[in-house]
Formats: sequence, C-alpha cells, structure tokens
Amino acid sequence: MRIDGRDNKQLRPVHMEKHFIKHAEGSVLITVGDTKVICTASIDDKVPPFMRGGGKGWITAEYAMLPRATEQRNVRESSKGKVSGRTMEIQRLIGRALRSVVQLDKLGEKTVWIDCDVIQADGGTRTASITGAYVAMVLAFAKLVEEKKIDELPVHDFLAATSVGIDPEHGIILDLNYSEDARAEVDMNVVMTGEGRFVEIQGTGEEATFSREQLNELLDMAQFGIQQLIEIQRSTLGELALQIDMKRNGESGSAS
Amino acid sequence: MRIDGRDNKQLRPVHMEKHFIKHAEGSVLITVGDTKVICTASIDDKVPPFMRGGGKGWITAEYAMLPRATEQRNVRESSKGKVSGRTMEIQRLIGRALRSVVQLDKLGEKTVWIDCDVIQADGGTRTASITGAYVAMVLAFAKLVEEKKIDELPVHDFLAATSVGIDPEHGIILDLNYSEDARAEVDMNVVMTGEGRFVEIQGTGEEATFSREQLNELLDMAQFGIQQLIEIQRSTLGELALQIDMKRNGESGSAS
Amino acid sequence: MRIDGRDNKQLRPVHMEKHFIKHAEGSVLITVGDTKVICTASIDDKVPPFMRGGGKGWITAEYAMLPRATEQRNVRESSKGKVSGRTMEIQRLIGRALRSVVQLDKLGEKTVWIDCDVIQADGGTRTASITGAYVAMVLAFAKLVEEKKIDELPVHDFLAATSVGIDPEHGIILDLNYSEDARAEVDMNVVMTGEGRFVEIQGTGEEATFSREQLNELLDMAQFGIQQLIEIQRSTLGELALQIDMKRNGESGSAS
Amino acid sequence: MRIDGRDNKQLRPVHMEKHFIKHAEGSVLITVGDTKVICTASIDDKVPPFMRGGGKGWITAEYAMLPRATEQRNVRESSKGKVSGRTMEIQRLIGRALRSVVQLDKLGEKTVWIDCDVIQADGGTRTASITGAYVAMVLAFAKLVEEKKIDELPVHDFLAATSVGIDPEHGIILDLNYSEDARAEVDMNVVMTGEGRFVEIQGTGEEATFSREQLNELLDMAQFGIQQLIEIQRSTLGELALQIDMKRNGESGSAS
Amino acid sequence: MRIDGRDNKQLRPVHMEKHFIKHAEGSVLITVGDTKVICTASIDDKVPPFMRGGGKGWITAEYAMLPRATEQRNVRESSKGKVSGRTMEIQRLIGRALRSVVQLDKLGEKTVWIDCDVIQADGGTRTASITGAYVAMVLAFAKLVEEKKIDELPVHDFLAATSVGIDPEHGIILDLNYSEDARAEVDMNVVMTGEGRFVEIQGTGEEATFSREQLNELLDMAQFGIQQLIEIQRSTLGELALQIDMKRNGESGSAS
Amino acid sequence: MRIDGRDNKQLRPVHMEKHFIKHAEGSVLITVGDTKVICTASIDDKVPPFMRGGGKGWITAEYAMLPRATEQRNVRESSKGKVSGRTMEIQRLIGRALRSVVQLDKLGEKTVWIDCDVIQADGGTRTASITGAYVAMVLAFAKLVEEKKIDELPVHDFLAATSVGIDPEHGIILDLNYSEDARAEVDMNVVMTGEGRFVEIQGTGEEATFSREQLNELLDMAQFGIQQLIEIQRSTLGELALQIDMKRNGESGSAS
Repeated sequence: MRIDGRDNKQLRPVHMEKHFIKHAEGSVLITVGDTKVICTASIDDKVPPFMRGGGKGWITAEYAMLPRATEQRNVRESSKGKVSGRTMEIQRLIGRALRSVVQLDKLGEKTVWIDCDVIQADGGTRTASITGAYVAMVLAFAKLVEEKKIDELPVHDFLAATSVGIDPEHGIILDLNYSEDARAEVDMNVVMTGEGRFVEIQGTGEEATFSREQLNELLDMAQFGIQQLIEIQRSTLGELALQIDMKRNGESGSAS
Repeated sequence: MRIDGRDNKQLRPVHMEKHFIKHAEGSVLITVGDTKVICTASIDDKVPPFMRGGGKGWITAEYAMLPRATEQRNVRESSKGKVSGRTMEIQRLIGRALRSVVQLDKLGEKTVWIDCDVIQADGGTRTASITGAYVAMVLAFAKLVEEKKIDELPVHDFLAATSVGIDPEHGIILDLNYSEDARAEVDMNVVMTGEGRFVEIQGTGEEATFSREQLNELLDMAQFGIQQLIEIQRSTLGELALQIDMKRNGESGSAS
Repeated sequence: MRIDGRDNKQLRPVHMEKHFIKHAEGSVLITVGDTKVICTASIDDKVPPFMRGGGKGWITAEYAMLPRATEQRNVRESSKGKVSGRTMEIQRLIGRALRSVVQLDKLGEKTVWIDCDVIQADGGTRTASITGAYVAMVLAFAKLVEEKKIDELPVHDFLAATSVGIDPEHGIILDLNYSEDARAEVDMNVVMTGEGRFVEIQGTGEEATFSREQLNELLDMAQFGIQQLIEIQRSTLGELALQIDMKRNGESGSAS
Repeated sequence: MRIDGRDNKQLRPVHMEKHFIKHAEGSVLITVGDTKVICTASIDDKVPPFMRGGGKGWITAEYAMLPRATEQRNVRESSKGKVSGRTMEIQRLIGRALRSVVQLDKLGEKTVWIDCDVIQADGGTRTASITGAYVAMVLAFAKLVEEKKIDELPVHDFLAATSVGIDPEHGIILDLNYSEDARAEVDMNVVMTGEGRFVEIQGTGEEATFSREQLNELLDMAQFGIQQLIEIQRSTLGELALQIDMKRNGESGSAS
Repeated sequence: MRIDGRDNKQLRPVHMEKHFIKHAEGSVLITVGDTKVICTASIDDKVPPFMRGGGKGWITAEYAMLPRATEQRNVRESSKGKVSGRTMEIQRLIGRALRSVVQLDKLGEKTVWIDCDVIQADGGTRTASITGAYVAMVLAFAKLVEEKKIDELPVHDFLAATSVGIDPEHGIILDLNYSEDARAEVDMNVVMTGEGRFVEIQGTGEEATFSREQLNELLDMAQFGIQQLIEIQRSTLGELALQIDMKRNGESGSAS
Repeated sequence: MRIDGRDNKQLRPVHMEKHFIKHAEGSVLITVGDTKVICTASIDDKVPPFMRGGGKGWITAEYAMLPRATEQRNVRESSKGKVSGRTMEIQRLIGRALRSVVQLDKLGEKTVWIDCDVIQADGGTRTASITGAYVAMVLAFAKLVEEKKIDELPVHDFLAATSVGIDPEHGIILDLNYSEDARAEVDMNVVMTGEGRFVEIQGTGEEATFSREQLNELLDMAQFGIQQLIEIQRSTLGELALQIDMKRNGESGSAS
C-alpha cells in the first residue's frame, strides 16, 4: 500500500468548486488530495499582434505558486524579477493542451487568459491545473454564449490530465503526490480527451530509463485515471457537459 | 445609505478561517465583504545579514494579487519582471505595522515571512492584509511556543487596520469598498493597537485636501471600526488572545 | 538643546536658488541644513495613455540620490537595475502632493515631470523635495504663461512639507536631521497647503506607537514649520506668489 | 515523396566534426541536413551549492541560436534581457537526457557545462543538440581520463534523439525539417539509449490529437532513426565507443 | 621572435569563407589565427523610428561570444540578463565603422543588421569582426542589387581593422593574439579605409602611457597590416571589389 | 568665429569648486562652459574579489546624467532598468584613465569609487568628468595621507582630458560644445598626462574619415588645451600639486 494508503491505480480525492472568484468570467477551485489550485479564465476582446485579422481566437496560460504553497517557502518570482524555466514549461503546456479541444475559429478574435494559481501544493499541480482550467474555460465560454457573443460552446471534447510514474517500491502508480514524485524513477504526465485520444505525453526518466513495455502500462493506467477525472468534470459542468457531448459526436479535430 | 446598504460607520462582514494553508506555520483566510486575502506566516531560522549577531528577530512582508482578483485582469508582476511602487509601499507598511507589536528581542534570531495574497479584491486589501497577517503571525508564534522554541508569545498587543474616507455624497465613511475608494476625495488608512494607540496613519487627499476637524472625525471613526476588528481577532484566536491580554497588562512598547 | 543646537520647534536654515539648471522649464536648488536637492520641472506636451482625450494635465515625479549624497556610498539604482521600494514610495508621494494644489483641467493635456535629485542628504529629503518641487513647478507654469501656452498659473494654493517626530530624549521635535531621524520613535511627514489644510499625513511608529494627544502635538508643530516654509517659497517666487494668493482667495479644491 | 525528396522513414544526412572548438574539453559541430549546432562540453571542478559534499557530479546545459540561424533574424535573448520559455524548456531537456546515461557518482564533484549553439536552423535543433552534446561530453570525459582525473568514462550507454511527426499529406514521418515541422499535426521528440530504452518522450498535438495506434507507429519510427544516429556517434567516437559498449554490458541504470 | 613565431610586423593567417550561413543575405566566417567569427548581414525593410521619413538607411551591429569561445567558459549574457559594457562598446564601434563607408542615402529606408558571433577567440575579435562584417555587408548589398532593390553597391571604399600594441619585450607589434594582448602596455585598434584614411583610432594605455613618437610608429604599422587585410577582402569579393574601386574613384565621404 | 564667440583653439571658461559634497572623501564641482559635473571620490577598504590578496588597489568609475541635464528630458537609467552602452563606455574610459597615473601598489587593497554626475550638459561631459575626477581623487588620497592610512599621494602625474573635432565650417576646433559636437565630422577625445604623454586617444569619424595630417593637427590642439586644464587643476590643488610634481620628477609609469 502506498504512503497515503491508496492502491497503485487509485486517484486522490478530487473536488471542484465552481465560480470561486467572482470577477472572473469562469473560475474553479480544484482540489486533488492536498493540492489546491485556483483556475480562472478571463476573456479579452483582442488577440496577440501575430494573429490579428485571422478571425481566430487564442488561448494563453499563466501558472504560479503562492510562496507558502510548499513545505518550504519559495521566493516569489516577482521578487526574483524573472520566471523560472519550470514555470514557463508548465504555462506552455497548459495553453497548448487547452487549444487542442477548442475550435479557435468559432471563438472569433478573442484571447482566453487562463490563470492557474497553486495555493497549496502536494504534487501534480500541472495536471490539476489543466483539469481545472478546462472547467473554468468552459464556464467562461458559457458566459459568452449567455451574453450572445458566440453562438455555441467552441469546445469539441473534454480534456483532463494526470500523472503516472514508476516507484522503486510499488512499481507503476497513478496520480503521484509530492513524496512519491520525489522518489519516482520515471515520471509521466498525460493529457487526454474524452474520446481517449492523446493531446500530450511527457515521459521522463531522471537518471533512469524505461522500456516499451513499461511505457504501455503507464499509458493504460493514465487513461484509467483520466476517464474518472472527466466524469468529475462532467458532473461539475452539469447541463454544459451535454452540449459538449453533442459537439463531440458531430465533429473531431484529430490527426487523420 | 451607501451603495451596498451600509450606514456610514458600518464595517463590511468580516470572517477569518484559521489554518487555511497546511504547510505554513500560521495561516488565515480573511474575508472582508468581497475582499479575500490568504495570509501566511513562515518562520525562517535566520535573520538578514544586517541583523546577524544582534540576538533580535525580524518581520518582513510580501503582498501580491492574483491576476484575476480584480474586475479587469492585471498583468502578473512576475511577467513584468518588476514589482510596482504600490506593491512595495504596501509590503513595507505591513512589515512595519506588525513589528510595532512584537518583542523582536524575545523572538531570537528568526525571520517571520508574512505573505498576503489577495485572491479577490474589492477595496481595503492592505488593511485586510494587516488584520489577517496579525492572526497568522500569532498562530505561527503559538506553534513555536508549542515546539518549545520560544517561551511565550512575543506579542504585547493586538493590531488591526481599516480605512476611512470622505465620500462626495455621504461624507465620512468607514471601511471603503472599491467603488467608494475610487470616488473618495480623501482616503486614510489607520493601523491601531488594542490599547487604542496609533501605529500608522496614512491620510491622502488625491486632488483634494482636508481640515483638522475632518481629520479628527476620520480618526474617531477608524478607531470605532478597529475595535470591532480586534474583537473578531480575539474570538478567532481563542485562548491565545488571553495570553496576549496578559502581556498587554504587563508591559508596553509605546513612545514615552 | 538638540544635537545641532536647535530648540525643539526650530527649522534648519532653508534656502532656495531659482533657475539652477538652465535647460529645465523650472528649477530650484533647495537647501535645508545639510540636505540639498536639485528640483526640476519639465513640461511634456502629452499625457499618459490612460488620460488621453480627457483634456486634463498630469504631474508625475521621480526621486533619486547621488551615490555619495550619504555618509556611506550607496549603490546606484541604475546599476542594480531596479528602483527600491523607498524610492517608489517617495516618488508617488511627491506627485500626489503636487497634484492636490494644481488645477489639472486648466493645464490642458500636458505632463509635468518633476525630478528631485538629492545631491547631499542629512534627513528630510522627501519633504525638502516637495517644498522645492512646488517652486520649480510654479516657475515652469510661469514660463508656459509667458509663452502664452496657458492663460494663468493653474495653482490654487501654496504647498510645503516638513517632518516632525518623537525623540527619546527631547520629545516632540520639528524638522529632523539624519541622526535625529535614526533614533526617533515616531516619525511623521506632513504636507499642507497655504490655507492650513492637510494634503498628506504619514505617521509611523517603528517598533513603537503613539497616542491621540501626541498626534495632536505633532500636527501643531508641523503646521508651525510649514507656515515658515511657505513664507520662504513666497519670497523666492516674488510677484508669482501674489498671483497664487489671488487664485487662493477665488477658489478651493478642498473636500467639502 | 517529401519536400526534400526523402521517403517517410529516412533521416537527413548527418555529420559530426570532432574538436571543432579548440578551447573546450570536448566539442563537436553536428550537421543534420541544414541544421548545424556547435556543441561544447566544459568541465568545472565544482558542483552547484545544493549538491556540495555529496560526492556526485552534475550536468547542466544551455542552448541558444545565433540571431541569423533562422529564415528571419531573431532578436538576441541577451538584448531582450531574458531567456524565452522555449529556450528554457530545451535546456532542461538536454541536461536531463544526458544525466540519464552518466554515472554521476563516478564523475566526482565536477559540473559538466554543455553549450549547444545553433548556427544554422532547419528544424530538429533540440534533438541534434542532444545527439551532438552526447559526443562532446564523451570527448570531455576522455580528456579527464587521459589527465588521470577519473579512472574510466562514467557513461553506461549511448544516447541520441530525433523527431517524428504526423504530416497531413504523408502521414508518419521521421526527422522533420522546418517546413515539415511547421505543418505537422503531431510532433514528437524521442530520446533513447543504445539499448533501446526511453529516456524522454515528448509528444504534442497542436490543435490536434493522436490515437494509441498512431503513438505506437511514431515510436517505432523514432527507434529506427535513433539506431542509425547511434551508429554515427559510434564511428565518430572510434575507440571510445568500445569502452562504452563494455560498460553497457556490465551495468544498467534502468528502472526495474 | 614572438610567442607564435611571427615577426613584429606580421599578421596571423587570415581566411574568409563566404556564404557560411545560408539564411543570411550576406555572411562570412572570418578566421584570423585562432580567432573565428561568424559575420552575417541581414536586411530589414524599415529604419528605426528616429530615422523614419528621412529616406536614409541605417546600419546597426551586435556582437557576442559563445560561452566556450574562450579558454575559460564565460557566463552567457542572456543568462545574466544584461549585456556587458565591453560588448556594448564593441557593438557601437562596429556599427559606426561600417556606416563611415556606406552611402546611407543610396540604401533607402532599410536597416542592415550586422551580427558578429565569435565562436573561437584568441585576441583581436573586434577588429576581425569589422573586417569580416564589411565583407558580409557587401555581399548583402550585392543581393539587393541582384534583386533590383537598389541600383548599385552603396559603398564608396573598403574598410578593415587591426590591432597594434607595445609589448614589454618586443616593442611595437602588429595583430596581437590573446596572450600578447594580456601583457601589452599599450593597445590600439585602428579602422581604416582603402584610401588610407582613418575611421577610428582607439589607443589605450592600461596603467601606462605612450609618447607621440610611439603613436606614429603604431599607426604606421597598423596601416601596413590593414592594407594586407583589404587585399584579402578584395580577393574574397572578386568582381564586387572592382565595383567598389570604381565608386572610390568617383566620390569620397571624407572630412574636408 | 565659433557659435559662442570663441576662436578655434580656445577652451570654454573652466572652474572647479573643491569639497562640494560634504560626505565624500574627495569632491569637486567642475564647470566647463555650461557643462557642470559633480565628481566624488569614495574610499572603500576592500578590492573586488578578482584582486584580493594581491596587495594592490583599484579604481572604478560610474557616470550618470540627471534627467534634465539636457535640452530634452532623458528617461532615468534606473527607471529603464538598464545602463546604456554610451554610459558604460564612458565609465570604463574614466576608470582606465585614472588608473594610468595612480600607483595602485602604493594604495594598498582599497577601492576608489569615482562618481561623475552631470547636473547640466553642454558637450564634453566625459572629458570634464575625467578632469574633475582626477582632482576629487587626489583630494581623497590627501585625506588618506592625513589620516595616516597611506604614506604619500600614490599619484605620479597630472591627468586631464578634452575634445577636439573637425567642424564643417571652422575646421579643427578645441573643446566642442553640444551644438558643435552634433555637427562635427570627426570627434576626438584625448586624455594626457602632465608630461604630455597619451593615456587614451579615441578618434571617430561618424559617416566621415580623416587623414594622417588632420590627425596630427587634432592632437596638437588637444595637447594645447590639456596643458591649460592641468594648470587649473594645479591651482585648485595648491600645495598638493607640488607633491605630485615631486613624484613626477622621481618616477614614471610610461611604456618603454
């Protein structure tokens, strides 16, 4: 049994609180075990210069941690005057992942600013951010529909993420917490759609390597976890989830 | 009646949730109307270089807002690569205020890092930060006492803050929300102790001025509000509040 | 008697040299004891983006110290690549104070850049900066009137500033020099108009507090000093001072 | 047939010129089609502070492009004053990949600085950097052995990287050049060892997704390309390659 | 005899490889002994804001070193987040020197971006950069002529640079390598035209001084070296050199 | 006759006010026509890390302009967050020039910080800075002698600087003011010792060139001006000048 009593293929308890921040067009507080992230989606009525005139929308993400989200207090990136490589990597990942399920041409020339602020961290902050940001983004789109700025949710599938890894003692495990992550030989983040297609796979052996067989087992377990996360998104979104399902049946942005 | 139905000398609803962040030595989520601030106190077992060897402790504060804490999304200070003048002014104010009620020599060579992160803003974020940070700091000190790292709470009085201002329509008002603050002719932040002594007065006429009589009325109203805030701190801190009261009766750091 | 032989309510010798810098629209070298500040006012024929089209002017201030203005050489802020919190706080204070006595709508869409550069420091640099910058600004306005770019001085009152404090040995004192400031228990900067109305009060107890009675004595002494500073401004400005007096009698921007 | 006449599973011509930079302990100019990268390995006789006293070595990498390596001139990151997210992501990837095949404990407290400077870019710069940096690093280790600073090459396997992707017209292709990369629906970078174990998989659908079957085909093709790259490393390293083979047969750092 | 066997007035072997970087409008790899610099010239179809509407072109230069160009690895300027004083001085020198032989009015409103990237350094990198950048720039101009964007090469003379110095043992020497430069008492960089006119003289005694007679000898030797460098430029440029000679005979931009 | 009535070989009026800043070990306000620079010399009892243990001193210089020293207000370098290339070039020049006449080994492990702050600019600010900084530095050394921290002035000669140039109308002229500098075809700064030896020559043709004959005339005129500047230094320094003369007769640091 794992350090917190879970078995290898068990997610931590997951909860999402909608409309957590009143000013944002869409917002959610996602809790995955002891990891808590405030995700907001803000709509800006213009796109970056390189996209102007193209008629398409854009999605960009920022990620940060409160200084005391972690066991040891971290120096604030605003005080250091620069953003770390890790932060930039995560920001790019979140934006890229969300763009894969959004019909940017149906959004029109708008930018969606996603902010994921980790207020308490215990591993898996980037995957919790993606899973929560998806919901905040859909809520913001629903507001645009309500205000008649767009006709329908420009989203053609669900999207969620989790981590899997190889633990020296337990083998392949799902949804690593901080202490598990720190000792894992292989760490993999997987982002998938509701249809079970991959959006992103990032598998890394830190001072270790992994075989094709291990890869296959890792991916099976990730898919198992992501399906459950999507069920939680579905129940959080309620009626909006049905609209997404209808779109999913109609069209697909997958590579042929 | 004011925009949100309050009368001139009425505070907004105030709530404090202790131990909101599990990793921090002390933490509180303070809610003042729609303003919400996560305050944490972290203990570091050393002091800055200019204080080493003096046997005294130090308290320093950082303040930030989530990008979507406000009506319009703000650019993150970490992205801009620098901290604004407003942020620095607030950080210095919070640190200075807290130091006025702490017996730094009884703390020993430790630094208390206060972090005030505004997750939702509707005016009065700096005064809410001070009021909440005081409680987070006392909780952190209580943990040090519990771990037998210090003998007693090194705090000789309560400390809270509020704003008062002159509204063009309503005259002198207490605890301004954002829309009141935006139109106020005079804005004043007051930090006071449980004994009713001033720690900080910052009164500003933006494109306006104020008389000595108006100043006196503003200060009376601030004191009225701060006494109520200290009662809420007292009930949040429970038994710890009694320890502070005992210290208060024994000694005083006031200017003679 | 105080360290430099003054009695408690005595200002240091004050002198202002007009037109000290030939290129600036307005300039003054203000000397307050051993504190010397070059104040210049520069006129720019546009306002910041957030004010364009509003027909009103703007005033903004910058403050700096030469590295060897102080007893110990300071690292230049341009070398450090960032401006300190203290500098930003002072810059904001100077700009805000000047704006309170200027009729920005009569100035038209112009920006006044105030630069206060301390070439020698011995306490009270921010209050000397305000007192000198006021004169430099009026001189720049007079040049605009002369060049027929505006009709009259857009200034409705005088403005000056000084510090007061509580000294552990001497009690309440006026116009603190550096060594007095370093040991003061309470330090207060007061900005007032010629009419005796407050523009800004910043009172701070560093590891100390102060009572309402002490506050009243501090404010009385500040007013006493500021009245003398305004007399010196008056004699420096000569005929221009009379124009301001006439405006003062005609109108007022004070909070009702 | 692809734009440059290759078939889907064909690498571009690859060449490595050893000892290209005379000052570096190890260096190589790697050419992959029109992509050219100078890779150097520098040995520093200390490790970063967080590793001191642990007896282990460290490997860190930096990556940059000359401004005119690309079709359009890029602004230099030193002029912008900050390093982009893309650059940081690549730097972290290179360092992590190399560390996976090095016996850091046998290196002793030394840091290997890898510099990958792209002088001409036509896609695949990060994978060419890894493939070239591996050779530069082994050459630097050989110099340490020669100088009797370490006993043997602290490397237990080969390491190379390539890209695979899904092209809208040609389907799954190997070693994408710039124009292929720009239009690919799915892009994947794979880092593998001589034994055929994975070190890193980074697969990304930009506004697209991919199935488990497509993933398997992508990985097969990547492995096919990497085996050829390792043969070229082997012939570049000559006798040193045999030493690595002997180590490979003796031990393994793979996840169990 | 000097450390590398040269006599006092002997240049190191010089070689220029044209079209070294395929994307740049003009490029050359210049080798002077062990010093190697990639020089590229990029054409941008606009000029900086301060020159718009004037009908003239502009030339600007950037200079950098790869981290391991030198004996000891240097920290990258992009990592430090700022460009050193030495780099800025060299950049300004290169741009200024090139502008002295270009007819900016015949270029039209275009900017030439010169990039000089030192890939291996052994003294004289700034003079090698100027000598190589001149050739890269002429090649870029030739491309503009070919594309009929300008009528003729807007260059009225050749331009090259070298260093001379006073060595404590050998006296006055030409084209100092790194170890000679490190011990030289006087160091002088000279930029001259094909006509033998000066464009720039920078002579410096570091903790030493030099007489008028020594200055004259230094300048004679510099001219001797520069004439040879121009011959090498001439043979690299081939037919383009003849076009420059014809222009040189027709007109001159020298001070009267 | 030149724009300000001078003939070609006439300096502007020069004045030096000693001890202008009370805190600095040495200070001078130098006035050259309308150019005014505050020069201070500060002594620090340690040297930079790369010089520790060598028993020698170091001299470093910083240069800045007040924002309104110029006709148009300049943005402060501290606000821009970086120091311009021009500023760095001047700082390096000042430090290098001063070091050439100081016996660093007789100074011991001390750093002299030179600060040159231009409060009003009308051309020639860098040469005025060198000429004034020399005097400030000697005054600081005299203070060290007085305090018995060193035995004698560690200075073996005088040092001053001026500019010469080629004016399109007047030909070769001495000590250019701003408007002359702006239209000069050739601009040259010369730093010389009391013995008439060169320390630095920086001659530049901006979009122009100059002949050997013109160079000789420029240098003659520079020497003529510098001799007068040294006479003014001599009379400012009084008795200290005699001590320098005695040292000058005893020894020399010139290149053999």
